[in-house]
Amino acid sequence: MNPATFLRVLGPEPWNVCYAEPSIRPDDSRYGDNPNRVQRHTQFQVILKPDPGNAQELYLGSLEALGIDTSAHDVRFVEDNWESPVLGAWGLGWEVWLDGMEVTQFTYFQQAGGKVLDAPAVEITYGLERILMSLQGVKHFKDIRYCEGVTYGELFLQNEYEMSCYNLDEADVADQRQRFALCEAEARRMLEKRLPVPAYDMLLKCSHAFNVLDARGAVGVTERADCFARMRALAREVTGLWMARREELGHPLGTVSSSTDEDAAPAAAAAGKAAAAAAAGPSSPELFVLEVGSEELPPDDVLAGMAQLRERLPALLAKLRLSHAGVKVHGTPRRLTALVRDLAPAQTAQESKVRGPPAKAAFDASGAPTKALQGFCKKAGADIRSVTVEADAKGVEYCFVVVNDAGRSAVEVLSAELPALVGSLSFKKSMRWNAFGAAYSRPLRWLLALHGDTPLAFTYGGLCAGDATRVLRNAAQPELQVPSASAYLSLLQQQGIQLDFEARKAAIWQGAAAAAAEVGGIIPASASGDLLDEVANLVESPTVIRGGFDPAFLELPEDVLVMVMRKHQRYFPVFSADGKLLPAFITVANGPVDPTAVAAGNEAVLRARFEDAAFFYREDLKQQLADFRPKLKGTLFQKDLGTIFDKSVRVEALCPALAAAMGFAAAADTAVAAAALCKADLATYTVTEMTALAGTMGRHYAQVQGLPEDVSTAIFEAVLPRQAGDILPASPAGIVVAVADRLDSLVGLVAAVGAPSATADPYGLRRAAYGMLQALVSNNVSLSLRSAVALAAAQQPLPVRGQQQEAVVDFVSRRLEQLLVDSGVSAEAVRAVLAERGDNPALAASTASQLQAALDAGDSGPLRAIMTALSRPTRIVRGKTVDVSVSVNPALFENAEEKQLHAAYQAVAQQLQGSSSSSSSSSSGSLDVAGWLAAVQALVAPIDAFFEKVFVMCEDEKVRANRLALLRDVAGVTKGFVDLSQLPGY
Amino acid sequence: MNPATFLRVLGPEPWNVCYAEPSIRPDDSRYGDNPNRVQRHTQFQVILKPDPGNAQELYLGSLEALGIDTSAHDVRFVEDNWESPVLGAWGLGWEVWLDGMEVTQFTYFQQAGGKVLDAPAVEITYGLERILMSLQGVKHFKDIRYCEGVTYGELFLQNEYEMSCYNLDEADVADQRQRFALCEAEARRMLEKRLPVPAYDMLLKCSHAFNVLDARGAVGVTERADCFARMRALAREVTGLWMARREELGHPLGTVSSSTDEDAAPAAAAAGKAAAAAAAGPSSPELFVLEVGSEELPPDDVLAGMAQLRERLPALLAKLRLSHAGVKVHGTPRRLTALVRDLAPAQTAQESKVRGPPAKAAFDASGAPTKALQGFCKKAGADIRSVTVEADAKGVEYCFVVVNDAGRSAVEVLSAELPALVGSLSFKKSMRWNAFGAAYSRPLRWLLALHGDTPLAFTYGGLCAGDATRVLRNAAQPELQVPSASAYLSLLQQQGIQLDFEARKAAIWQGAAAAAAEVGGIIPASASGDLLDEVANLVESPTVIRGGFDPAFLELPEDVLVMVMRKHQRYFPVFSADGKLLPAFITVANGPVDPTAVAAGNEAVLRARFEDAAFFYREDLKQQLADFRPKLKGTLFQKDLGTIFDKSVRVEALCPALAAAMGFAAAADTAVAAAALCKADLATYTVTEMTALAGTMGRHYAQVQGLPEDVSTAIFEAVLPRQAGDILPASPAGIVVAVADRLDSLVGLVAAVGAPSATADPYGLRRAAYGMLQALVSNNVSLSLRSAVALAAAQQPLPVRGQQQEAVVDFVSRRLEQLLVDSGVSAEAVRAVLAERGDNPALAASTASQLQAALDAGDSGPLRAIMTALSRPTRIVRGKTVDVSVSVNPALFENAEEKQLHAAYQAVAQQLQGSSSSSSSSSSGSLDVAGWLAAVQALVAPIDAFFEKVFVMCEDEKVRANRLALLRDVAGVTKGFVDLSQLPGY
Repeated sequence: MNPATFLRVLGPEPWNVCYAEPSIRPDDSRYGDNPNRVQRHTQFQVILKPDPGNAQELYLGSLEALGIDTSAHDVRFVEDNWESPVLGAWGLGWEVWLDGMEVTQFTYFQQAGGKVLDAPAVEITYGLERILMSLQGVKHFKDIRYCEGVTYGELFLQNEYEMSCYNLDEADVADQRQRFALCEAEARRMLEKRLPVPAYDMLLKCSHAFNVLDARGAVGVTERADCFARMRALAREVTGLWMARREELGHPLGTVSSSTDEDAAPAAAAAGKAAAAAAAGPSSPELFVLEVGSEELPPDDVLAGMAQLRERLPALLAKLRLSHAGVKVHGTPRRLTALVRDLAPAQTAQESKVRGPPAKAAFDASGAPTKALQGFCKKAGADIRSVTVEADAKGVEYCFVVVNDAGRSAVEVLSAELPALVGSLSFKKSMRWNAFGAAYSRPLRWLLALHGDTPLAFTYGGLCAGDATRVLRNAAQPELQVPSASAYLSLLQQQGIQLDFEARKAAIWQGAAAAAAEVGGIIPASASGDLLDEVANLVESPTVIRGGFDPAFLELPEDVLVMVMRKHQRYFPVFSADGKLLPAFITVANGPVDPTAVAAGNEAVLRARFEDAAFFYREDLKQQLADFRPKLKGTLFQKDLGTIFDKSVRVEALCPALAAAMGFAAAADTAVAAAALCKADLATYTVTEMTALAGTMGRHYAQVQGLPEDVSTAIFEAVLPRQAGDILPASPAGIVVAVADRLDSLVGLVAAVGAPSATADPYGLRRAAYGMLQALVSNNVSLSLRSAVALAAAQQPLPVRGQQQEAVVDFVSRRLEQLLVDSGVSAEAVRAVLAERGDNPALAASTASQLQAALDAGDSGPLRAIMTALSRPTRIVRGKTVDVSVSVNPALFENAEEKQLHAAYQAVAQQLQGSSSSSSSSSSGSLDVAGWLAAVQALVAPIDAFFEKVFVMCEDEKVRANRLALLRDVAGVTKGFVDLSQLPGY
Repeated sequence: MNPATFLRVLGPEPWNVCYAEPSIRPDDSRYGDNPNRVQRHTQFQVILKPDPGNAQELYLGSLEALGIDTSAHDVRFVEDNWESPVLGAWGLGWEVWLDGMEVTQFTYFQQAGGKVLDAPAVEITYGLERILMSLQGVKHFKDIRYCEGVTYGELFLQNEYEMSCYNLDEADVADQRQRFALCEAEARRMLEKRLPVPAYDMLLKCSHAFNVLDARGAVGVTERADCFARMRALAREVTGLWMARREELGHPLGTVSSSTDEDAAPAAAAAGKAAAAAAAGPSSPELFVLEVGSEELPPDDVLAGMAQLRERLPALLAKLRLSHAGVKVHGTPRRLTALVRDLAPAQTAQESKVRGPPAKAAFDASGAPTKALQGFCKKAGADIRSVTVEADAKGVEYCFVVVNDAGRSAVEVLSAELPALVGSLSFKKSMRWNAFGAAYSRPLRWLLALHGDTPLAFTYGGLCAGDATRVLRNAAQPELQVPSASAYLSLLQQQGIQLDFEARKAAIWQGAAAAAAEVGGIIPASASGDLLDEVANLVESPTVIRGGFDPAFLELPEDVLVMVMRKHQRYFPVFSADGKLLPAFITVANGPVDPTAVAAGNEAVLRARFEDAAFFYREDLKQQLADFRPKLKGTLFQKDLGTIFDKSVRVEALCPALAAAMGFAAAADTAVAAAALCKADLATYTVTEMTALAGTMGRHYAQVQGLPEDVSTAIFEAVLPRQAGDILPASPAGIVVAVADRLDSLVGLVAAVGAPSATADPYGLRRAAYGMLQALVSNNVSLSLRSAVALAAAQQPLPVRGQQQEAVVDFVSRRLEQLLVDSGVSAEAVRAVLAERGDNPALAASTASQLQAALDAGDSGPLRAIMTALSRPTRIVRGKTVDVSVSVNPALFENAEEKQLHAAYQAVAQQLQGSSSSSSSSSSGSLDVAGWLAAVQALVAPIDAFFEKVFVMCEDEKVRANRLALLRDVAGVTKGFVDLSQLPGY
């Protein structure tokens, strides 16, 4: 947030700066108890703009300069994308781990103040205390030797303790809010005066006041969003004014000009091209290798990149008529590699017929070729004697020649096409890093392309491809020449790099299992999923290392310990055969490190993490879960909707009626008890710190204090689902509370601030709606959305008008539509169902899937015939003014077919009504698709017969009206079931 | 204010720290225009605790390390005593000048948080920008090369400009006041929680808010005092809590223990003593030299120290019976030297009679000496046969012996006595610097004492005296051995040190005159006073250097330019023969510097100073003087008394009646016009920056805009006197406004906050009263204090009760008493006058001086006889109940003496009454002393005769009462003149 960073990364001017910055994070207050978490630490902050191209190497060199042996320690770049919602700024990059401890944040800034940066800047922020701890081998920040005879603790421990008291316990909330307001107003005034510097100063003070409020636990979700939006708006205006000012000054520091690949190492490129032209490549099929080298990709992006290469490279080769014996794609954090076996030396030859000038213009009166034809033949390289004349579809005659394309060399065509292939690789988040404009997951640093022993020279993103690869950064020679494609694999292997993802995974899994076995433990198979994938893509040369922790920490809830190990540290927890957590963990370092040093470092980190967790857990246990609830009064939910506490009161009040509406009247008391406590854990320290444990800790604390199991369960289930793919509430009370909480958010927030727009959903209402629907659908719980919304509306502190309630229903319905489409039902079928049964999501869902099955059955099922039959009355009635008050009068029937149809209709109607009313109280109260089809099928023959014999639009007005009324009733058998007219072919 | 300084100088623990600190002074905002004044600069701050003993040398070494050639440049230590009213902290020290530019503040902390420091700490704060400018030879801070390709201006100019706008023009005053209040309240709360660190943090924020308010010109004198008091109270509590905490922790860094001189270099001391004992000193009279070496003394202290040595050393020598041929005392900033010509090698021999035991106990029955006598003789070193017996005044007989004291060597006795002599030297402000507890103006660093070639070894303040002196710090050898006293003077001379103050002055004066003459200028004789004294005591090796400045600056008022040169820079301004300021100045460097470099440096400094002044002056000229008046509404005078503007309105309203009461009715309109404008210049930039120019600038701006000369004059005179010894108002309107302004302060503030106490006078009311009295007395303007106070009381926004008005009168009267005593009138005479004429200060003053003259005349004047005569009726009446209603009834007279006395009385009474009433409207309306004496003299003989013949206390009650009434009337002739009973001998 230092203006030397924030303001200077804006605009086109170059900027290189470094400085030590005291970094204050009230939220990290720990009274000086935690070994490496402090509310004030010192960052060494670096900005390199433009990207020098070797920032990582410079950084590693700086660690060496500080005295860290980077070949003994495990230094890793672990995906971490920095974002400042306050500054409207973000970038992609990593946290740098030194033996598992985050010591640096490394970011390529992409945006600041809401503006895409003209020239991306590298930001490196060193955590000096942590680096010092590692260098000095001390386990607690207070033991750092600051200078001869004075420890860091002597200097700063008292400050740390007292400021922690202030930040966590004593700061006056009203006072801080007032400071926020004062500084915001002053920032606004300064912006009006066109003074961005003092405005930014005030913004920083706003931010600090906010951070103190946050540490005091006084900021709710909606207040947070609101404060961020206000600060971001200030940052945006500061940005605009500052950039305008720099422009007025004429950018005194010059500009980082944008470049194209033609500018990239032009000499090298030219040399490469010349070389490639000279050596046209191998003369027989040879192995081809393409290596796209970059800075560390996020694990998911390794997989995404591999998948894209796997799909696109074969397609490209086919398009280019380059034959081969198979493509194999590999990936590590630093490289995506494609190996093409026996790639042909050149394109397959091909004959093609090329159209020339019209015959009329090709020959003169004497039949001799005109200049036009001569030119065409010359250009096509064809003998004029080979010209043939053919008429096109319209009968116009043209000249044709057959051109024989012998095919260019593979080296030549691939050199032309590979830049586009690399450029086509896309990722969930892409970035730019230099002025060449290329986008990739992380900066590209080298390109290797070899066909046999011929390097391909092409440029992309400012790089010039060639025959060099890079191996482990701490290798004796980190950049190596690869003599030929066939040497590539073995060379990487020699360097300890496991290129194959599956092989890497297997090696890690076996190593981890073996290491666990040494302490009599196992790694449960469940850990072989996402975590293994992730870990395998965090290293290219896995070294499995086992560490341990103080068994005393086992007093903490297992969920907490496992969460810390897996999520924060990417460790595999080790369990005993009977499923008990053991005081050990497995981590995977990159390259040939010193296992003892790395294990010790990781153990120290884990200890700090666990102490943090223990600190929170012990603090929490000092009170009952119910005691935390009143603290929610300090956390604003939304200004018109009160605090989180107010919200929990509403949810509690909503439960009885909602439970009844859901058919869970018996669980109402449990739901009420759970609703009262379900938000309480948000005020606990543990959840404040590890928000992902919301619900989990609520359940845990409820269990610890002996609450009934169904209440504990419902407390947990209330937060479900926490993210896509999560488990869903399953107990009646859990479902009630989960739905009630989300309903309350939806109704309250839509009334207070309106429904989310297509681009902005600051309160996460989409997720809320989706979660609520999943709970209902997965448990097949019948509930009328409209009436549920009305129940929730009655609890709101502000009036919720009918129109607003409709807006909620509409918003939820659109989510339901998406949910059903995602489940594999066609969009038409979903619309057909929702038109009739959309108010009851569970029913809609079951109906939709049954309908889809019926549709999928095609002619082999009854639906097709029924649709065909029913479409006729529907069509004839549609657009006609059918008097709804007219009942069918059997006396007016003139034909037997009329009577038969009427009789059949009455039988069907009775059947439909009966089955729907008889089961109206069950959660799947309405008729299912099979039942409906079975009933309605009886109408098919009478309808066909009716239309065969009866002329509906007869002269006699009464008869006509009677017939239309009959058809209206018949068409109406879809009512309350599905709107068949939405289906194709109806 | 950094806690690493403020908190750590507290208590007994050692502490050595240095760090770079961004130093924000909103008041120094100049929009980045001024070459070396910025609202944010960078200080390198150093704390050395305890004093290492050579901090100055370490400092100079650090300048050398930075690349400054300290032998070419003029580095001087110029008295500047740091004080932070916010922190309740102060210390003595210097600003360090590098070629006239303040580059460092050097302070020996004495107090912090209102506590005397256990161990004084040295604080050195380097102004890094200024040092860089000097090193790089650039003339504006923005041109400093920060690094390759980036200037300081590029980095910080925009910030400087915008933050200046904020600080000077845009910061919202109400907002800043609110911040102050918020932070103060939060600091209070934290103190209650016993958390000094966050409390201190809040205090710093208070201080910043205050500084912004101040820069915005929104803080009046009383609000300033109030804010300081509140912040100081916080600082004091922080201090207490922090110290208690350190004590609880057991002072983990150890303690700086206190020492005595016995601990000082004990080996050296022992060696010295041994040497002195061995060599008992010269055998014949020899020159003796004592040099007390210290760090740079303030110029006044050089003079004060010399005066004390001049008085005390001869007295000491006499007491010690050391004969000599004269004492000469010299002084420079670094040394006080006494030279004693032909000091005797030993004390003059002396016989003395010593009393022994009573004769009764001295001899036994046999007449043989008892053990008592034997012991006495042995102790006195006398032969028992020399005992004589003599009776004392009571007739008791004692034994006596004559002891022959041959006298010890001068070296021996002086070694014993000199520590006390040095210790007796006292200064206006003294300090402690180490644990030896000695106090001096600045730290003592060496002691030289030589008798002939014998060094005296004594210890004081942790120093061991000897034969070493110190010369210029940049000399080849800064510490030199002095072989003998006679070599001392020539050695210093060789080293370029001019020891003699008068010689130094003369050299400077001649050099300055010569340098001025080179540009056709002169130094007016008026400059030979204080400034020459001061400059002569700022150097010991004067090097006169002339510099110049851009003549364009001569557009500024001469007062401003001269003030800047003389006061800020201690330069001699140069004038043409006809009194016009020339664009040149004379400065005096210390030692053999590079004159070109020093002149260039000083010119750059002066240019910055002048640009500052020009900036303010030009800003001021944009408006009329009257336009500044409304700005005073933003400056609080005192919360119950409103703003300075309100005050100026009251003073304006007070003028007409006050002018009339002073006999200046004709000047009332002028006074009103001046009163309206007399505070306006306080809101000008120039006065805000150079407060000493208040009044001067008001007059100047009034003249520039063409106001009548008498109004301009009165605007100026309203501020007079500005300090002790200043000129006084002389024009009628000027006197009226000056008195009105002070009266308003006195009456208002006494009513609002009470009269000042003996120790606290936060609003400077003593000075106000004193100035008012001087204005009245010097101009002999008659004014009744009591009625003037009533007039001022009527203007106050709050009721001023009679008792409060009396308190004002009483307070002023006590100042008048002091004023008169200071003018040379005896305290008794002053009291005698004030008892009768105290309400009219001018009359009281003239009466007092006349009375003193009459008293001084003794028997040669009439007063003595009159007093003797009048004392008799006064004494006889005193204590008796004389019925005041009884008039003298001549019919009851029995003697001629009664009748004569009565007649004489009536004649005198008529005379006194006549002369007082006839001149009642003149400003010296009452009878003067001579007139009174002349009149009253006629009573002397009748009184004497009366008491000779008349028995007052006769039997006849009526007669007695009549006689007492007569005596009462006679004694009453002193009424309205002087209370003679206050005089001694009455």
